[in-house]
Amino acid sequence: MLHWDMSVLMPPGGAESRVEQLSALKLTTHEMKTDPRLGDLLDAAEGDGPEDPWQAANLREMRRSWTHANAVDADLVEATTRACSASEMVWREARPENDYVRILPYLEEVLNLSRQAAAAKADVLGRSPYEALLDQYEPDGDTTRIDALFADLSEFLPNFLETALARQTARGEGRLPDGPFPVDRQRALGERLMAVLGFDFDAGRLDVSLHPFCGGVSGDVRITTRYTEDNFTQSLMGVLHETGHALYEMGLPADWRYQPVGAARGMVLHESQSLLIEMQACRSREYLEFAAPLMRESFGGSGPHWDVENLYRLYTKVERSFIRVDADEVTYPAHVILRYRLERALIGGDMTLGDLPGAWNDGMEELLGIRPPDDRLGCLQDIHWYDGAWGYFPTYTMGAMAAAQLFAAAKEARPGVSDAIAQGDFTPLVGWMRENLHARASSASTDELMTAATGKPLGTAAFKAHLEARYG
Amino acid sequence: MLHWDMSVLMPPGGAESRVEQLSALKLTTHEMKTDPRLGDLLDAAEGDGPEDPWQAANLREMRRSWTHANAVDADLVEATTRACSASEMVWREARPENDYVRILPYLEEVLNLSRQAAAAKADVLGRSPYEALLDQYEPDGDTTRIDALFADLSEFLPNFLETALARQTARGEGRLPDGPFPVDRQRALGERLMAVLGFDFDAGRLDVSLHPFCGGVSGDVRITTRYTEDNFTQSLMGVLHETGHALYEMGLPADWRYQPVGAARGMVLHESQSLLIEMQACRSREYLEFAAPLMRESFGGSGPHWDVENLYRLYTKVERSFIRVDADEVTYPAHVILRYRLERALIGGDMTLGDLPGAWNDGMEELLGIRPPDDRLGCLQDIHWYDGAWGYFPTYTMGAMAAAQLFAAAKEARPGVSDAIAQGDFTPLVGWMRENLHARASSASTDELMTAATGKPLGTAAFKAHLEARYG
Repeated sequence: MLHWDMSVLMPPGGAESRVEQLSALKLTTHEMKTDPRLGDLLDAAEGDGPEDPWQAANLREMRRSWTHANAVDADLVEATTRACSASEMVWREARPENDYVRILPYLEEVLNLSRQAAAAKADVLGRSPYEALLDQYEPDGDTTRIDALFADLSEFLPNFLETALARQTARGEGRLPDGPFPVDRQRALGERLMAVLGFDFDAGRLDVSLHPFCGGVSGDVRITTRYTEDNFTQSLMGVLHETGHALYEMGLPADWRYQPVGAARGMVLHESQSLLIEMQACRSREYLEFAAPLMRESFGGSGPHWDVENLYRLYTKVERSFIRVDADEVTYPAHVILRYRLERALIGGDMTLGDLPGAWNDGMEELLGIRPPDDRLGCLQDIHWYDGAWGYFPTYTMGAMAAAQLFAAAKEARPGVSDAIAQGDFTPLVGWMRENLHARASSASTDELMTAATGKPLGTAAFKAHLEARYG
Repeated sequence: MLHWDMSVLMPPGGAESRVEQLSALKLTTHEMKTDPRLGDLLDAAEGDGPEDPWQAANLREMRRSWTHANAVDADLVEATTRACSASEMVWREARPENDYVRILPYLEEVLNLSRQAAAAKADVLGRSPYEALLDQYEPDGDTTRIDALFADLSEFLPNFLETALARQTARGEGRLPDGPFPVDRQRALGERLMAVLGFDFDAGRLDVSLHPFCGGVSGDVRITTRYTEDNFTQSLMGVLHETGHALYEMGLPADWRYQPVGAARGMVLHESQSLLIEMQACRSREYLEFAAPLMRESFGGSGPHWDVENLYRLYTKVERSFIRVDADEVTYPAHVILRYRLERALIGGDMTLGDLPGAWNDGMEELLGIRPPDDRLGCLQDIHWYDGAWGYFPTYTMGAMAAAQLFAAAKEARPGVSDAIAQGDFTPLVGWMRENLHARASSASTDELMTAATGKPLGTAAFKAHLEARYG
């Protein structure tokens, strides 16, 4: 809630107190988790071995949280918090100024501390240091699996991208309808389409922040977006994306609120839910058949640019570009694979930060065939590393694969899913997702949940099939 | 911040989690304050006797906070929190339904637990149980002093009220200009007048809540109001009132942020600052000379109802009425004196809650000459007792006396104060207040601060002189 407030409406004068508040809460919870009695209590509970599978899973997640907290001492936690704050602040200025040299010493400090934490956690978890970091975002995340999945995509995507671009040239690109698009109408349209998806406004809110996110707590899920009056399409798709995250949170089992097992499984499945809504469902032709008239009506538009076909082409445009967050679903994996390779090398000590800008640009050239002209469009673009979030990136593309696999399974299990979407009815899709994923929370691993819901563990097949069908 | 969020924008689904969050924070801070090591540390620090007067005052306030926390055990704290929540919820329904019988058992429970806490604290503080409760709102508050001050007012006010009403009848009452008054214009006018007072919007906000308040933290002071489109005058004066509270918070010494000595002194001086701005300054003819044209312009009004004289009569209207929060400054003390008498009797065990409605109505008749037709207009009107805030009421009227005394002293020390206000310049008044009150925070007692600022301890003279000058 304090993070939400800080991002949405806190006046600048609140920054100093807010840092104190957040640090105090972080320190207090760390002290609670490292209370010596807790280890004994966990040992005793594990000795008993709870029979109920949810209780067993709950205990497993408590142990995971305990292990992460107890692997590092309070000094390292505090030093990391301070280093990340400092680095993030400098990054906010260094990025627009294209000044990697300025941020470098701060980033060195963050990386150094992150590697210390990674090493300490790796020891206890019996995993590699990189996996120890990954485990914080995607529990039990496994680099052997990721390597295999990403190798498969790396082989498939370059040729497929050529095909998709050629087809796009042949059929013509979509064109943005003429604006301006007043903010209040964009907001009203977003809220209307959120309600269509099943977002409960008695249990959540839509607000504005510089960087969109989904936050809040059980029963009070808060998403944000950002508006520009010359283009409604990005903000609107962003709202639908965050609504996907929100629906996952809203679908978690109320009986397990406040318990570790009751939380969302991890960032792979969380991202699968946002991409399910944004990419799989809401960029489909079926959805636009329903939504295009509402869009036109919202802005009082007229003319062929409001036709379903034009909006569909606009919303499925493919393009080689430098910035990850603006990338389409065909080129996005290349952005992630690049970052995954680089952060593994940096955490593993196989590369230095001095070599990062060059390695980044070489990698972009290799994977996507374009070379960033400067670091602003290269290694300075994402906040993650500067804020200490090492090991996060692979979850984006794994989420995209999971989204495709879950959507395919939902359509197979409930053949009316796509027809319903064309009528603005998301109950078949979201209902299936609630039952097969949301309601199961963290009671099993990502792969167990995927297998139970789709018949197989996470793979690339459905994602490739989806791209073939939409862009091939 | 969580209280602010809950009052301003939390969706209803957040209530369950919010109760958990607030309870967890309350329990955690209570555990910190009752950590056995803390008592030893305070003993040792007091033994050393810090020479620096601010450090000594800081230690004194730490000890006060420690004493209040350690006098009651965690079970009583938790039971009280739960009883107050339940009682407050039922009160929200019982009040509009005029159903004192329904709320009675809940109020009994709250009173019973409050009396237990009062007795426990009285033992340690060496004060009466009522004073132990009062001490939470007005440190070192003393019933002998209050009795004397209130006796003096009780003697003065009834006759004075007759005089004021007769004069009002003779000169005619003010009339509300014709509305409606759109909310966005009310907000813009409020923000403009807040800025005139010196409210720093980089260090605070104005929002909307059902019950107006001033909250937030150092560097991020948040006030609220409530709008109705048929009358701008109440909401606007409410905004100015809360701005007075905010200016106090904004003027506290930055060097002592987060330390007990750096906090506002108590509710008497806090209320003095809101009433200084609202009653002393902004209901004055000088202020309205400045503000009336802005009000007219804000709502595009015209005609004699926008004249200074009419608005002044409107803003200084005197009337016997049943509801404290709507009362004018001449009749307000009667409301407070009644509650003070009753809550002392209830905490002291000299009266039962079954007798409260009758005693209330008798008291109103005695003090103000009117008898409430029902409990909605009587003992059900204020949230305080139902929410466990026993011992709070006297601070309102002591604050009104302090406001008059401080305003008189400021005008004497800086003769240009009133002329500046007529020009919309509050720097002489607020500057004097910063220097003589805000900057001193909790470094001395209320009476010491009053004596240093005004030459004498808190008394009734300035307040009576103010009433004479404005209404006599």
